[in-house]
Amino acid sequence: MMYETVNTGLIDVESLPWVPFTPYSPDVLLKYIKLDPVRGEMVVLLKAPGGMQMPRHHHTGTVIVYTLSGQWKYREHDWVATPGSVVYETASTEHTPVAMPEGGEVLALNIIVGELVYLDQEDRVIAIENWKTSMQRYLAYCQANGIEPQDLTAFSG
Amino acid sequence: MMYETVNTGLIDVESLPWVPFTPYSPDVLLKYIKLDPVRGEMVVLLKAPGGMQMPRHHHTGTVIVYTLSGQWKYREHDWVATPGSVVYETASTEHTPVAMPEGGEVLALNIIVGELVYLDQEDRVIAIENWKTSMQRYLAYCQANGIEPQDLTAFSG
Amino acid sequence: MMYETVNTGLIDVESLPWVPFTPYSPDVLLKYIKLDPVRGEMVVLLKAPGGMQMPRHHHTGTVIVYTLSGQWKYREHDWVATPGSVVYETASTEHTPVAMPEGGEVLALNIIVGELVYLDQEDRVIAIENWKTSMQRYLAYCQANGIEPQDLTAFSG
Amino acid sequence: MMYETVNTGLIDVESLPWVPFTPYSPDVLLKYIKLDPVRGEMVVLLKAPGGMQMPRHHHTGTVIVYTLSGQWKYREHDWVATPGSVVYETASTEHTPVAMPEGGEVLALNIIVGELVYLDQEDRVIAIENWKTSMQRYLAYCQANGIEPQDLTAFSG
Repeated sequence: MMYETVNTGLIDVESLPWVPFTPYSPDVLLKYIKLDPVRGEMVVLLKAPGGMQMPRHHHTGTVIVYTLSGQWKYREHDWVATPGSVVYETASTEHTPVAMPEGGEVLALNIIVGELVYLDQEDRVIAIENWKTSMQRYLAYCQANGIEPQDLTAFSG
Repeated sequence: MMYETVNTGLIDVESLPWVPFTPYSPDVLLKYIKLDPVRGEMVVLLKAPGGMQMPRHHHTGTVIVYTLSGQWKYREHDWVATPGSVVYETASTEHTPVAMPEGGEVLALNIIVGELVYLDQEDRVIAIENWKTSMQRYLAYCQANGIEPQDLTAFSG
Repeated sequence: MMYETVNTGLIDVESLPWVPFTPYSPDVLLKYIKLDPVRGEMVVLLKAPGGMQMPRHHHTGTVIVYTLSGQWKYREHDWVATPGSVVYETASTEHTPVAMPEGGEVLALNIIVGELVYLDQEDRVIAIENWKTSMQRYLAYCQANGIEPQDLTAFSG
Repeated sequence: MMYETVNTGLIDVESLPWVPFTPYSPDVLLKYIKLDPVRGEMVVLLKAPGGMQMPRHHHTGTVIVYTLSGQWKYREHDWVATPGSVVYETASTEHTPVAMPEGGEVLALNIIVGELVYLDQEDRVIAIENWKTSMQRYLAYCQANGIEPQDLTAFSG
């Protein structure tokens, strides 16, 4: 039965590849760590060059961001996230991330529940990201680069 | 502090109004019971006439549907949900609900985490529903009908 | 990979057995519908005779209770839950359920996240219930009664 | 209404105190970052000296651990968590944490859903930790040290 395959486990993050966030922002690199196909939770490291702006979006659930290096902000807020800070994002809030040039490369751990909905200037949906698109991007990257993919969707100890 | 306002509570469902699902399907009535502004969970009763089809959509998190009366199905699945059954929907799955004409009015309790993303034939997003749009629809309906709105977003015992 | 086994599905609740809540309250019957081995969510129908009191407990996450028939209350609250009402329980709140004698048999749908911790008069833990103990009780009941168990822990469509 | 106080926000982790994990392991320091009084989620930094063992426990929901420095393991598993690794713990699994002496001080970010249930050798519950006990420990520490407490239970942007 399914439960017999479920257990607490360690994920060797170093063994996972940095995947470019194609086709949206190929300079942004994502390391997919865990993708929950039942509830849509994603554990993802994000790396972006200082000075970069990413598209405006809302996410459909909570997001917890722990910043490891660099500085970034949301255009819609006054604060700047620096290393060691935590940003707690509530469901269906909207923002435009900017990596501050002075902080250098941004590296951040994200625990995302649900989807990211990217919007253009007229609030039209231009892209949706979720556990499925993440898995497809990871698998395509592995195939293109001769990497044996791991099962990021299993909780197998 | 916030936690001092939080407690287990009873919601008197009868005192809440049936709100038409305007502008999409005004024949579908929704009773919003709880809307979580932190995580985006929604507890909602849905009532739809037998024979009705609703737009294709995916939802960004899980949905649990307990059918109280009527019969309905998803075009994409073979099964028919009948009274007393439970449908467990996993994150980012897509389907087109149909209320079976032979079952009469459908009444179902829904525990929805996240958003519903409605799609047209070409997979373009035509509408997004979440705790915010639900709260707006509820408040607008209350105002238009002289109803004192309750705070569906509080967990206040 | 794990995700290939995950999909939206119908659970035929009628095909599942009523399992006595042994050894605590064998007059209370539980129908386990879904047990999530990753996050500990449980979807469970509960049936209890009118007039019955169950042990005081707290639960470690949220509980949503939809009452289908009968009347019940928590000793710690003034309200009485009647058919069609929703009780929303917040994490780590404590209460003593009582089925009102005048309401007849209580039947209620429960969406429970996490564990139930049962306490005695001196606040000592006397029992803990979770997806594991639920699965064990279900499997033991199936075996003792010659029932082929279903995999309540799968989300397999 | 409650939702009007909810928004995405930055938590200035540096401004929060390290609170000793009294009375269990005063050498272990906890920095409580967010405590969700509705669902029982806790975001907590943990600091423990190398070589230390903590009591065996299970937790009632998922735990995600991101190790920032040091090395630690669970007696029940073979792997060792090193800086940059992620441990994903599934609901109701049980383990005994050990900080490896050779790794120096352990510093780890924890996203915990629900409660921790500490057990003695005979599997009797010796302590339970949750958002309420965490809030009490934080408030008591603030009071004893003349610190103005922040509302860790609000999601107020």
